[in-house]
Amino acid sequence: MAVFDINPIVSSLNAIRQEWRSSQRRSREPGGREFPSPQAMTKILDDLKGVLFPMRLGPLDLRQESEDFYIGHTLDSALHALLHQVRLELQYQARHRDHDNGEIEARAITAVQAFASALPDIRRLLDTDVLAAYHGDPAARSVDEVLLCYPGVLAMIHHRIAHQFYIQDMPLLARMSSELAHSQTGIDIHPGAQIGASFFIDHGTGVVIGETSIIGERVRIYQAVTLGAKRFPTDGNGKLEKGLPRHPIVEDDVVIYAGATILGRVTLGKGCTVGGNVWLIDDVPPGGHVTQADSQGMQSCDPAVQE
Amino acid sequence: MAVFDINPIVSSLNAIRQEWRSSQRRSREPGGREFPSPQAMTKILDDLKGVLFPMRLGPLDLRQESEDFYIGHTLDSALHALLHQVRLELQYQARHRDHDNGEIEARAITAVQAFASALPDIRRLLDTDVLAAYHGDPAARSVDEVLLCYPGVLAMIHHRIAHQFYIQDMPLLARMSSELAHSQTGIDIHPGAQIGASFFIDHGTGVVIGETSIIGERVRIYQAVTLGAKRFPTDGNGKLEKGLPRHPIVEDDVVIYAGATILGRVTLGKGCTVGGNVWLIDDVPPGGHVTQADSQGMQSCDPAVQE
Amino acid sequence: MAVFDINPIVSSLNAIRQEWRSSQRRSREPGGREFPSPQAMTKILDDLKGVLFPMRLGPLDLRQESEDFYIGHTLDSALHALLHQVRLELQYQARHRDHDNGEIEARAITAVQAFASALPDIRRLLDTDVLAAYHGDPAARSVDEVLLCYPGVLAMIHHRIAHQFYIQDMPLLARMSSELAHSQTGIDIHPGAQIGASFFIDHGTGVVIGETSIIGERVRIYQAVTLGAKRFPTDGNGKLEKGLPRHPIVEDDVVIYAGATILGRVTLGKGCTVGGNVWLIDDVPPGGHVTQADSQGMQSCDPAVQE
Amino acid sequence: MAVFDINPIVSSLNAIRQEWRSSQRRSREPGGREFPSPQAMTKILDDLKGVLFPMRLGPLDLRQESEDFYIGHTLDSALHALLHQVRLELQYQARHRDHDNGEIEARAITAVQAFASALPDIRRLLDTDVLAAYHGDPAARSVDEVLLCYPGVLAMIHHRIAHQFYIQDMPLLARMSSELAHSQTGIDIHPGAQIGASFFIDHGTGVVIGETSIIGERVRIYQAVTLGAKRFPTDGNGKLEKGLPRHPIVEDDVVIYAGATILGRVTLGKGCTVGGNVWLIDDVPPGGHVTQADSQGMQSCDPAVQE
Amino acid sequence: MAVFDINPIVSSLNAIRQEWRSSQRRSREPGGREFPSPQAMTKILDDLKGVLFPMRLGPLDLRQESEDFYIGHTLDSALHALLHQVRLELQYQARHRDHDNGEIEARAITAVQAFASALPDIRRLLDTDVLAAYHGDPAARSVDEVLLCYPGVLAMIHHRIAHQFYIQDMPLLARMSSELAHSQTGIDIHPGAQIGASFFIDHGTGVVIGETSIIGERVRIYQAVTLGAKRFPTDGNGKLEKGLPRHPIVEDDVVIYAGATILGRVTLGKGCTVGGNVWLIDDVPPGGHVTQADSQGMQSCDPAVQE
Amino acid sequence: MAVFDINPIVSSLNAIRQEWRSSQRRSREPGGREFPSPQAMTKILDDLKGVLFPMRLGPLDLRQESEDFYIGHTLDSALHALLHQVRLELQYQARHRDHDNGEIEARAITAVQAFASALPDIRRLLDTDVLAAYHGDPAARSVDEVLLCYPGVLAMIHHRIAHQFYIQDMPLLARMSSELAHSQTGIDIHPGAQIGASFFIDHGTGVVIGETSIIGERVRIYQAVTLGAKRFPTDGNGKLEKGLPRHPIVEDDVVIYAGATILGRVTLGKGCTVGGNVWLIDDVPPGGHVTQADSQGMQSCDPAVQE
Repeated sequence: MAVFDINPIVSSLNAIRQEWRSSQRRSREPGGREFPSPQAMTKILDDLKGVLFPMRLGPLDLRQESEDFYIGHTLDSALHALLHQVRLELQYQARHRDHDNGEIEARAITAVQAFASALPDIRRLLDTDVLAAYHGDPAARSVDEVLLCYPGVLAMIHHRIAHQFYIQDMPLLARMSSELAHSQTGIDIHPGAQIGASFFIDHGTGVVIGETSIIGERVRIYQAVTLGAKRFPTDGNGKLEKGLPRHPIVEDDVVIYAGATILGRVTLGKGCTVGGNVWLIDDVPPGGHVTQADSQGMQSCDPAVQE
Repeated sequence: MAVFDINPIVSSLNAIRQEWRSSQRRSREPGGREFPSPQAMTKILDDLKGVLFPMRLGPLDLRQESEDFYIGHTLDSALHALLHQVRLELQYQARHRDHDNGEIEARAITAVQAFASALPDIRRLLDTDVLAAYHGDPAARSVDEVLLCYPGVLAMIHHRIAHQFYIQDMPLLARMSSELAHSQTGIDIHPGAQIGASFFIDHGTGVVIGETSIIGERVRIYQAVTLGAKRFPTDGNGKLEKGLPRHPIVEDDVVIYAGATILGRVTLGKGCTVGGNVWLIDDVPPGGHVTQADSQGMQSCDPAVQE
Repeated sequence: MAVFDINPIVSSLNAIRQEWRSSQRRSREPGGREFPSPQAMTKILDDLKGVLFPMRLGPLDLRQESEDFYIGHTLDSALHALLHQVRLELQYQARHRDHDNGEIEARAITAVQAFASALPDIRRLLDTDVLAAYHGDPAARSVDEVLLCYPGVLAMIHHRIAHQFYIQDMPLLARMSSELAHSQTGIDIHPGAQIGASFFIDHGTGVVIGETSIIGERVRIYQAVTLGAKRFPTDGNGKLEKGLPRHPIVEDDVVIYAGATILGRVTLGKGCTVGGNVWLIDDVPPGGHVTQADSQGMQSCDPAVQE
Repeated sequence: MAVFDINPIVSSLNAIRQEWRSSQRRSREPGGREFPSPQAMTKILDDLKGVLFPMRLGPLDLRQESEDFYIGHTLDSALHALLHQVRLELQYQARHRDHDNGEIEARAITAVQAFASALPDIRRLLDTDVLAAYHGDPAARSVDEVLLCYPGVLAMIHHRIAHQFYIQDMPLLARMSSELAHSQTGIDIHPGAQIGASFFIDHGTGVVIGETSIIGERVRIYQAVTLGAKRFPTDGNGKLEKGLPRHPIVEDDVVIYAGATILGRVTLGKGCTVGGNVWLIDDVPPGGHVTQADSQGMQSCDPAVQE
Repeated sequence: MAVFDINPIVSSLNAIRQEWRSSQRRSREPGGREFPSPQAMTKILDDLKGVLFPMRLGPLDLRQESEDFYIGHTLDSALHALLHQVRLELQYQARHRDHDNGEIEARAITAVQAFASALPDIRRLLDTDVLAAYHGDPAARSVDEVLLCYPGVLAMIHHRIAHQFYIQDMPLLARMSSELAHSQTGIDIHPGAQIGASFFIDHGTGVVIGETSIIGERVRIYQAVTLGAKRFPTDGNGKLEKGLPRHPIVEDDVVIYAGATILGRVTLGKGCTVGGNVWLIDDVPPGGHVTQADSQGMQSCDPAVQE
Repeated sequence: MAVFDINPIVSSLNAIRQEWRSSQRRSREPGGREFPSPQAMTKILDDLKGVLFPMRLGPLDLRQESEDFYIGHTLDSALHALLHQVRLELQYQARHRDHDNGEIEARAITAVQAFASALPDIRRLLDTDVLAAYHGDPAARSVDEVLLCYPGVLAMIHHRIAHQFYIQDMPLLARMSSELAHSQTGIDIHPGAQIGASFFIDHGTGVVIGETSIIGERVRIYQAVTLGAKRFPTDGNGKLEKGLPRHPIVEDDVVIYAGATILGRVTLGKGCTVGGNVWLIDDVPPGGHVTQADSQGMQSCDPAVQE
């Protein structure tokens, strides 16, 4: 007799899947996977990191005099791989949003072309982030160390790529790209967040930055900082309204110390400082300083909600 | 002359190991590894994830019409691999707990059979968690995105499997299964925690849920929430007593916002809400709201201990 | 026509790199990578973990009677691989610090020899950490479980190795070693931190321990604890002064509960306890207890800065 | 200065490729690979071997009671992978043979369906080959040994699959399949050869069997036997005529010893024997015996040509 | 509708397997693979080659001063892996030969111990083969080149190991070991062949050496030489008698040129030479020279049979 | 007690190695491998094959419009990897030939530069070989099939590269390159052989072409053809003289059928034909035809020797 009787378990799992698919109004038509793949995106992101920083994140045996060959080859291969994932995302959207399926191929090509054209600007922004990390951390010894070792820099490389997907209306690819960094760094930046140049996250574990956050230039934040939403607006039927601005605006040159929680569409004015562990649901004027003591009286209202 | 003189280091490490083994009363008998392997469990968990969600977490080229072949083959292979790990765990326990070694094979088979039979229910529960994530996060676009991208869902897949090992008295396999998710997500759920259907952890980094926690249905928690123990009870000899209920009970429909810390065997009543960063060591009535302001006066006693 | 026009993107990325290199005063000379490699360090660390704990972290098929062969072979291979990375680090330093390039080979060999000699002491210290974890966590079932499953133990294995690199003046190798653990565990210990025997970090996600921290023996800390700097001292020109003591001193037998933040060169006296979420910028006397309530009035001054 | 000046070599290789493509009237249009892939066929053949002989050529941990799950899953995956290769072959043919490109998808699916249906008969024939090897070699100890160790059996598994591709008019897939075995075994069977049941090749290195050979049942041949063509027929313009019968017919129960060379459309009658090293360009009557001595006078004419 | 209907093919293959198993009187009991594995033997042989020639066939980064660590570790690992394969072979034999199943474990250990003890002698013999190749080929530039590049040397490493399995009555392991070399080199030496020191095969493709061949010292042979059997002796019932001496005896210092075929239990006397392509079924006296011309009249009898 | 007592075997193997090293006058100085590596050459050859034929032997996802990026990157990487192997070969030669060790680096760079410059001509020659195969085999359907599937073409790619190493005086790299093809194809071409354009080997198994062979243009040969040496010339001391011309000269447009053996410095005149299995030790006039019958009387002298 077999040690395990597999058949009833297979049947029972099958029944549950059919139930689920019915409840989700999924077709039971035969067919393969119709969804972008995190594994494919991992490879694409690795290639793009090499394209952006060939001598630090490219292959170990690369030499400066032949960088462009490497970049050209890798970029071509990565863009074609990306094209396939974009196609999958657009097809997926089409099923859910009633688009005309026939336009998908053309839109996918246009999308990847636009994405490719954005890469130089992404590199330029990332250079400012690397410098910000180097200047912002007394322990940093060189820009190379920062690029290779700092989780905050890795998170920003992924974010700036993910944000590009986001603004090109490919939210799944965006999400996969940022979750890859989240898993490695503990830094959770929603791809929708708008972040200016020279951004630096130190240590980073536990940082959460919400979808509609707007962050200026030369901002510095520490581990466990949350830029969250205070409350989810609902429409007349009690359903969550999506896409409304609900996260903080952080102006240029702000510093936010570890563990601070800032919730809602508040504005942290240019050059202000938010102390560690501060709980904040109000605006801070430019140049202001908020400490934990200041923030004790602020939350007597409803429990803060946070996305 | 050799660049490095390896021999004295090898000897010196050997001496330290012998010392350690003596101090731990380990046998010096020759023999191989007698402990379950995290690598083996990684492969088994990956297979089980494919078995539970074939079209999303199974192989990329899988097609709906032949899922059952894939599931049957993968399940059979995973169960036999698991059988070997269960055997190792039971043998390990036998050394420490004085069991009869001869029964181990029979017990291992029974254990894996029971584990296999629990898989359909695990899938069913996970479906509720996926829906809870989809409905609980305004940014979620589809159940597929939730399943593939949300760290909280990954943590729950591992937890529901780990918990099954735990209640079948295989704590090492349980622990390995949950640590694999902890390392990827920053979410640390003890395998002993009892968690009802439709549970959703958003963002997740820094969440800690202790061994004797009991969580109802439709509960939602955010990053950096701790459900911990207030104090370790000791017996007459000052030794820690194990297994006593020491973590919170969270009833149905509770929401706990980011950074809240709830310690000890308190009860959060049905439908109550705990605000962000709240520090809580008392019960909350059903439907109650606790904010940080409310919680300021509560901890004047001993420093709270937490497991 | 090609789908993607790669050439302009390659050129444009090239221009940005040249700009960056000029701004960083990098040579444009052809040449290969001149920087230690995180991938190489990953392999070296894995080998060293096997050397230190052969029957738990070595190969699955290892047997006790032939451990020494495995250790000798693996150590030899790891030390030669490390020698190459040390060479790269010293060359990199030489470019930045004006050392005599000719001495590098000799210094590299001496450095690796010294590192190798330190391994037995590292193992000895790690044994105390393992025991501390076993005794400190009521849920721990055996020292083996602790060694294989506890993220805090993994972080300490990496830290004790990284610290050895640090005190031998190889900060990049040190940083890479500790970041590998940070990424897996969410525990961020600067390689410069001095940590005594029997140190235990429970859960661990979000822990940050700064460069000049000094920690005694038998200290226990929980998740999300920060030992940070209060303020970065600047010199007359407003530039950050590096290397000044700026993180806490934690004496023997101290316990720090989850989420506590201790900033600046304060001293936590022998045997004292710091409660959860406490925010602390002052000394604590030996045997003292600090709770969150005690710490409310302390931060009225400037927002606390933290490195 | 760079060690190697890559650019002129790249240019020069580019010029040669353009020249070649012009001379071959290849388009210079951009585009990807449009040809079946030997690597893909290697994986497909490996899967098919597992499907045909699951307990011997399938995965090591397979168990008899769950073979069908493995087979179903592997077959499905292999057939879809094959479908892609068939598509590539048909597209390639279409470019060369002026077919209607639109029919390709339908033809590809039909072709793979037909191929799949032929698998049971292929297995049945291979069972006779395995038995023939077992009975024909006094050194063979079991049918299992024969299946796992005999190069002649491996060659026949590939041949019977390759022949199926051949008769379904997919000569490139056929060729790739048989070359994979040729490379491993030194046995070169053209996929066009028609071979009856219970065929056994012993040792095998150097065996060559030409495209239009017809081999009956229970035939046995040894290493370095050639069944070749005597002369390539040419048409009126001196061009080689393709596809004409030009290799030997070997009737049932014939034995051909090592090194024998049989050329042209001759017939070896039922049950005859051809001795080692014999050079043969004439018919052999049923039951006849030919030795090297007999064959000395036969080749005074033109030098034998052989395909 | 699914593209492929897998189910009927799975069923039909299942029916054929059941038929085959009935015809082979195989049990239909559930169970796993019970046969040694070529993949496992490949790994074991690779390890043994490293153990025998560490600085040439061991890992690239090995250094002379730490060879013994590598050898000890690799040997231990290889012997334990071999032990498992020996167990499988003995169990397989037990099913077929009616041995007492209980003794298998003890016999397996003894067998591997004996095999291990034979390794030094195997290395010693192989050193003579390497020197013979170096001295016998005017193109050989060093013993290192011979060891790394000569297929004849690779074949002999496998043969001397396979022969050890053979004389310890493990014919399947022996066969697998020699087929691995056959596939790479085109040299087919039956593991049973007895071959003296300083044996050299040049070029090698197509060489076949039969089971009961006995070869003296300092023998040299070239590509496509066959040492075969003339006729298979049958017993009274017409069944092949196994194990009878039926292949040539080749005395010391004999040279056999390419393509020569020597069949039956003939003796090539000490120091004789056999010319290229010679066909030989008679003894050659010591010091004799045989050319193709001499051999023309010899085969007028029955077609030579050859195993 | 341990199952295997490894120590005496390790010691005994150590003693044999020391013996061997003494007998070979090897230093016992510690040190690493000082010999080129077949594994490294395998990778280099694979890269070079992709560089030479990017759309057929390069990566599957390569596209025509970006070939040059791929080629530039791969060539750069391959040449640097080759540089390291050339260094090892030159160092090895220096030990044996008393060269000045200091010149090695410069010579290695020059050698690889020269090798790189030869690649375009190698590609040009290989194009003629591919066309020769396509036109010479009635079964060939396209030049693509020939390039991907024909063992004779693979052997020639390796040979033309290996020959370049040979004429640049790097015999070990040459040998390794050609043995890689020998192992896969059964075709053994010595790297020293000079072979003209449009060379075609059909089937190929068992072909041997000796070091000093000179082959003209448009030559075609079949499986098991040997171009060997008749006798090794010895100097006054009876030692083999190396490097003397001792293999056949084959003029343009010659065809040699399967199994023919041509030995010694004979000349096959332009356009002649050599029949299958012919044994030949004399010149053939231009346009001549030799059949097996013609060759029977030729070998009455000494047994032919063959290298």
